[in-house]
Amino acid sequence: MTADRHALFTDLYELTMLQAYLEEGMEKEAVFSLFVRRLPQRRNYLLACGLETVLDYLENLRFDDGDIAYLRSLGKFSDRFLAWLADFRFTGEVHAVPEGTVVYANEPILEVIAPLPQAQLVETFIMNQVHYQTMAASKASRVITAARGRRVVDFGARRFHGTDAAIKAARAFYIAGVAATSNVEAGRRYGIPVAGTMAHSYIQAHEGEVAAFRAFARLYPDTVLLVDTYDTLAAVRKVIDLARESGDAFEVTGLRIDSGDLVALSREARRLLDEAGLQHVELVASGNLDEDRVAALLEADAPFDTFGVGTAMGVSNDAPSLDIAYKLTEYGKRGRVKLSADKPVFPGRHQIYRMESDGYDVHDVIGRAQETLAGRPLLGPVMKGGKRLSDATPPLDRVREHAREQVMRLPEHVRRLSPAEPPYPVQLSDALTRYQHRVSRNFLP
Amino acid sequence: MTADRHALFTDLYELTMLQAYLEEGMEKEAVFSLFVRRLPQRRNYLLACGLETVLDYLENLRFDDGDIAYLRSLGKFSDRFLAWLADFRFTGEVHAVPEGTVVYANEPILEVIAPLPQAQLVETFIMNQVHYQTMAASKASRVITAARGRRVVDFGARRFHGTDAAIKAARAFYIAGVAATSNVEAGRRYGIPVAGTMAHSYIQAHEGEVAAFRAFARLYPDTVLLVDTYDTLAAVRKVIDLARESGDAFEVTGLRIDSGDLVALSREARRLLDEAGLQHVELVASGNLDEDRVAALLEADAPFDTFGVGTAMGVSNDAPSLDIAYKLTEYGKRGRVKLSADKPVFPGRHQIYRMESDGYDVHDVIGRAQETLAGRPLLGPVMKGGKRLSDATPPLDRVREHAREQVMRLPEHVRRLSPAEPPYPVQLSDALTRYQHRVSRNFLP
Repeated sequence: MTADRHALFTDLYELTMLQAYLEEGMEKEAVFSLFVRRLPQRRNYLLACGLETVLDYLENLRFDDGDIAYLRSLGKFSDRFLAWLADFRFTGEVHAVPEGTVVYANEPILEVIAPLPQAQLVETFIMNQVHYQTMAASKASRVITAARGRRVVDFGARRFHGTDAAIKAARAFYIAGVAATSNVEAGRRYGIPVAGTMAHSYIQAHEGEVAAFRAFARLYPDTVLLVDTYDTLAAVRKVIDLARESGDAFEVTGLRIDSGDLVALSREARRLLDEAGLQHVELVASGNLDEDRVAALLEADAPFDTFGVGTAMGVSNDAPSLDIAYKLTEYGKRGRVKLSADKPVFPGRHQIYRMESDGYDVHDVIGRAQETLAGRPLLGPVMKGGKRLSDATPPLDRVREHAREQVMRLPEHVRRLSPAEPPYPVQLSDALTRYQHRVSRNFLP
Repeated sequence: MTADRHALFTDLYELTMLQAYLEEGMEKEAVFSLFVRRLPQRRNYLLACGLETVLDYLENLRFDDGDIAYLRSLGKFSDRFLAWLADFRFTGEVHAVPEGTVVYANEPILEVIAPLPQAQLVETFIMNQVHYQTMAASKASRVITAARGRRVVDFGARRFHGTDAAIKAARAFYIAGVAATSNVEAGRRYGIPVAGTMAHSYIQAHEGEVAAFRAFARLYPDTVLLVDTYDTLAAVRKVIDLARESGDAFEVTGLRIDSGDLVALSREARRLLDEAGLQHVELVASGNLDEDRVAALLEADAPFDTFGVGTAMGVSNDAPSLDIAYKLTEYGKRGRVKLSADKPVFPGRHQIYRMESDGYDVHDVIGRAQETLAGRPLLGPVMKGGKRLSDATPPLDRVREHAREQVMRLPEHVRRLSPAEPPYPVQLSDALTRYQHRVSRNFLP
């Protein structure tokens, strides 16, 4: 699968500003910092995600003849500018935290260092991807926490926002610890395990459940059967009859319950299966699940082994957007700020230092890139001269392992679903605070 | 731009069910109905959207060698099945309401009539697209209502969920009445007007606002200038100075305010501009706007002419998913139901009849396709034998006009932002109710 073409996936003003920068000869080095201004109420931390997509994009960004022809048709762009675009290559630098790293409000997820026009142009796509992928990974991390070690599978492609989100979500979920996806394209593109059971329509198309169960299990002996189409417990009894009749040939691995009182139904289904000697047949829950419902099911001792989670995880139902920003913090080696109400920008290039204690991460400081502070620095170079560095995009399973380690290092009260009290502490270094004040004074009216 | 390839954008279970249907010889005609089970609390109606994407997909759906090779690698599919997939063409029928049509809970947006395997396979993609596009159009329709005739522009590409959502959203918004989009790719793909102003980074990169305003207005005389980077009213005064100095050469058309107290700032900015004889310079609001904030601004007489709306409109912040379903309602000419708790399915093929009174639509009945009831029938054929009918996908501006007419026909209390009390009445016909009871009896345990 070739990389998607995305040159025109940009806001019009990026292009009009670019033409202006070039007209004005403003091609000095700029630093843009990508960060989330504040966390949603129900997010104690974020899992940074999307860097691989960003680096693919930056390496492959080209305007082809069709792109240029469309831009010419708008009547806003000079031939000189369009010729410049036709030769466009991203030649800059990127510093970033590794995918799967825990980040908090105001902490740079990545910084782009490039001639101003280049760094400006890429804003829309980079924000779009890091925003969604980080949101999806962060939400999924909560679902994984709620599931307390039980399997979580992504069933959501049908209700995520468009195809790109569904494919990227599957990858972000996998990084956060989700076991598999139903989305075949995501499986193909990223090598993620694919999984699935059967739909109500399969049951409905047969004259009765027994015929459907029998036919599906004949073709896929180790399948999961869906039991809630008509009457859940009656269907469980039909499966038990089928097991008796099939003897050793019965290899069905699980039953899925998608509606009704999941606690009561799962307990009774478990009891019936156990009585029939079918202890190895697992129970799969699905149907409008999110981290709260998964936690409530387990709190009520509902004996589910797997949770099929869809819509809520991929649309991030309780926080469907993050207040993400991509802000100019330096131009021509001079720090830049914004003084807009409630939207501060910290000038210059940055580093995040993370302090640990007893194997837990306990405190972050956002400092200037130039200073060295106590703790682990999180941002590192991932691209130079428009080419990614060799270890910038590790294999997906290593990213997933990194995310797992990150979450295990969270203080207990930050990892929990409920709002962290107190929140994880993130401070600005003295040097960054002083620098911000100094730069701000230059721009006060 | 060629159609995206989407053959593997499907849940794994669609493919495993397909193989089973073929093994079992279950290729009789099936009817699947796509509908929204219930409306979100803050949606009095939906604007159906996404049909064009669906028909493009059905006409172009093919499995190529790479798709087949990946599926083979999963070890679940027989050579016979993979050969069948390699020859797959959608040859079925689609009935649908025109894009831009108002629909309510349980009303079919479209119905697919095709051999069971074909109609099953296309579930995931069709749901994904109609779900998101309908949600985006429906949300935008509320923003348009709130804006009371003022211009609304889509600024949201950076925070919508992935690239596909951002591109499809721009089209859905345009259908709902949004004037333009900042998304260049959407402009190119659908011929939607593109628009944009300037970013804070442009201002920040210059040594001061005056230099930035001057440079941008020189290149784009009829531009909109962004005034909230440091001190909004100070910036407005700088623009007024620039106007005095430029005389007739001053053609700036608007000022954008993106943060702070938008009511107070817009009033004072308006006063300053008017005093300076700049009545023609318009004010553009942006920054976390949604329909409630737009309504509140106008309620407070904030003198804005244009609203740049982003994130909230494209992620549908107050209802980021719809309870959409694609359900088997008939197989082999026999009606099918589901008896799962709270998720009824109405068997057979359907028609929606809409009754009007005094130029307003006042009452819908969902009936069987076979019956003729009072009112306008809304569903019609759009595809036969896998080919779209000639008038199935009218030009975008006609779809937009249709949507406008639809919304104008809404009862006043349904068009409003607040929950409709009483809700718009939708009934089942007697014949459909009887048919549902009759079919359900066959499947009761």
